Amino acid sequence: MKFSTRAKNMEPSATLAISGKAKAMKREGKPVISFGAGEPDFTSPKAALDAAKEAIDKGETHYTPATGIPELKEEVAKYYERRFGLKYNPSKEVIIGSGAKPLIFESLGCFVDPGDEVLIFAPAWVSYVEQIKLCGGKPVIIDTTQSNFLPSPSSIEASLTPNTRGMIINTPSNPVGVVYPEETLKAIADLVVKHDLWIIYDEIYERLVYDGLEHINIVSLDSRLRDRTILINGASKAYAMTGWRIGYALGPQEAMSKIGDFQGHLTSNPCSIAQWAALGALRGAEEDVKKMHKAFDERRKKMVSLLREIPNITLVEPKGAFYVFVDIRNCLGKTYEGKTIDDDVKFCEMALESKYIAIVPGSAFLVPGFVRFSYANSMEEIEEGIRRFKEMVAAIR
Amino acid sequence: MKFSTRAKNMEPSATLAISGKAKAMKREGKPVISFGAGEPDFTSPKAALDAAKEAIDKGETHYTPATGIPELKEEVAKYYERRFGLKYNPSKEVIIGSGAKPLIFESLGCFVDPGDEVLIFAPAWVSYVEQIKLCGGKPVIIDTTQSNFLPSPSSIEASLTPNTRGMIINTPSNPVGVVYPEETLKAIADLVVKHDLWIIYDEIYERLVYDGLEHINIVSLDSRLRDRTILINGASKAYAMTGWRIGYALGPQEAMSKIGDFQGHLTSNPCSIAQWAALGALRGAEEDVKKMHKAFDERRKKMVSLLREIPNITLVEPKGAFYVFVDIRNCLGKTYEGKTIDDDVKFCEMALESKYIAIVPGSAFLVPGFVRFSYANSMEEIEEGIRRFKEMVAAIR
Repeated sequence: MKFSTRAKNMEPSATLAISGKAKAMKREGKPVISFGAGEPDFTSPKAALDAAKEAIDKGETHYTPATGIPELKEEVAKYYERRFGLKYNPSKEVIIGSGAKPLIFESLGCFVDPGDEVLIFAPAWVSYVEQIKLCGGKPVIIDTTQSNFLPSPSSIEASLTPNTRGMIINTPSNPVGVVYPEETLKAIADLVVKHDLWIIYDEIYERLVYDGLEHINIVSLDSRLRDRTILINGASKAYAMTGWRIGYALGPQEAMSKIGDFQGHLTSNPCSIAQWAALGALRGAEEDVKKMHKAFDERRKKMVSLLREIPNITLVEPKGAFYVFVDIRNCLGKTYEGKTIDDDVKFCEMALESKYIAIVPGSAFLVPGFVRFSYANSMEEIEEGIRRFKEMVAAIR
Repeated sequence: MKFSTRAKNMEPSATLAISGKAKAMKREGKPVISFGAGEPDFTSPKAALDAAKEAIDKGETHYTPATGIPELKEEVAKYYERRFGLKYNPSKEVIIGSGAKPLIFESLGCFVDPGDEVLIFAPAWVSYVEQIKLCGGKPVIIDTTQSNFLPSPSSIEASLTPNTRGMIINTPSNPVGVVYPEETLKAIADLVVKHDLWIIYDEIYERLVYDGLEHINIVSLDSRLRDRTILINGASKAYAMTGWRIGYALGPQEAMSKIGDFQGHLTSNPCSIAQWAALGALRGAEEDVKKMHKAFDERRKKMVSLLREIPNITLVEPKGAFYVFVDIRNCLGKTYEGKTIDDDVKFCEMALESKYIAIVPGSAFLVPGFVRFSYANSMEEIEEGIRRFKEMVAAIR
């Protein structure tokens, strides 16, 4: 079988690869501590579980409308009005997808022609790049490591060409945990309007912001973006519902109609039972969100303080999501257990094989020389895992 | 927002559109009888529901491997060995997807480059065409209405060009319910090998074959196709599990690895709870499959006998799936309730608006002049619905 160019050029999802390898080692009985996963360690809230069971008992096992059940769309629209003061028509401007991932792909599919350029602010989630490529588009990567992990307006403007169509913004960001401030978002909004661009605004981590900061929804900040922005969100990170695969997208009617048609051909409806579970969470899991937020915040502080004790690495304190992005460039080219640490990928392989700690190389986020720790695990695991990591770094010569 | 060419050229899924409209009319209190849906009317088997609840209780709410849980892959591989004598490596040659639909798309995505031609035998499911187009490919449609709804080897050979890469075969077929006989499949196999093509073999209706006929898996028929075929199947039609969205794909390792990577970027894992539900069905719903098969068979006979009493329409008796495809060309150009019946789409609109019966126009399957009845509803509904249909046809002048 001959593969398509798109298949040949596709890089596997590195975050999934590392968590897969760690899981396999765990099954073999190795004492693996995973800092790799991009998901809360909590089980989904009781409200979600109960709603799912109720839906099962009611026999909600048939196709739903391809873009989701009306009840869930309405609840998502209400949530956006309550939280951001935004009004979206539930039946025409809200789509429920099988996770945020396919919704981003479907949005790109509806906007990106071969040769079109889409801006991405690195470090960034690797699937953005692959999804743009799958649509025939060209990902234009703007490095933010020199500017506190925020894109400067001048760097954006310098990257624009006649082929630039739009950009993906992720705040709070994976892998850095940076929360885009008003100033940055305002400057981006001006550029987007001026240059007739669109935004895919991935705010999947919006409920996980710390230190009294606030997540800003760019459409509520600047209403000129209402017709230029697809908002991406979902139940996964806020409600610890990653396995269920329920995402939401909100945007202007004409675009949502296209995205909905695309979804009709690609996947049809997301799992019916999972939709009811997400509805249960949206209606009844607010307390769980707060509890998990508190736990993540405590772990974040612990992680940061433990990591800061380690010489030869540096980090910017994360203000959102559940990751710490650590600069390990000082360790590269040196030796660990007799072997040279060529790069961040090698570094992560050594950490997994020698210390049984799973972390994700920065190159999976387009930024070599860094590694990502997720702190979506217990305090005990964090302490033991960082102890091992410290040991490893101390042994690098 | 400017849409991509792909979005502009996309036709919405017509089968989903008609069932959506029928559902909306039902909600308004209209006595709609739907012959539109492509799904069993039964609730999913108890084995599936119980397994889902157990998974919920166990907290199986996290990401699974992107291509599915090992347990389900193994069960699918076992099923294929038991049923077709085929051996597939569960961890490397089986992928669990969010329905058969995304698995077909992912397969096409890995094989089809812009300009590549893919053969489709019409009447055929509309999403095949749209998915090929979404990959930049060219659907080459071979009309089978003149040859008992089976492609003749000569018609296939006449359609080959240097750009032909493969074909999609659907048996038992939607919308006709034709079951491909050994003779046809052998001839196709020879052509596929001779011209170095691949097959996406959609056998989602394989458990629904009647009158003592047997479904034939083309790889078990001709082992030369083992390395050229992606088998597509799923829990939806056999186990009345459409809403859960669980499909399976089986194929050669290298291809499955690409398709798996694609799925990793597109959707990640199918709903974790739904995977456990499908596992429950595969392990414990064989009796339900037989019961549903019996019910479908009775309805099929009833449908066919009632429809055959109606003058001016003709049909070929379906031998598989749960559809009857009816030739209404004799009704076109004539008048119903003072209005001209321009085409099959108009015919279906009139049937829904005047008689509250939902049927799907043949043009949604690339064959205008026909309509598709699903008999996935109760005997009472079938009798009442066909009574109304008969009334309508009798009033056509």
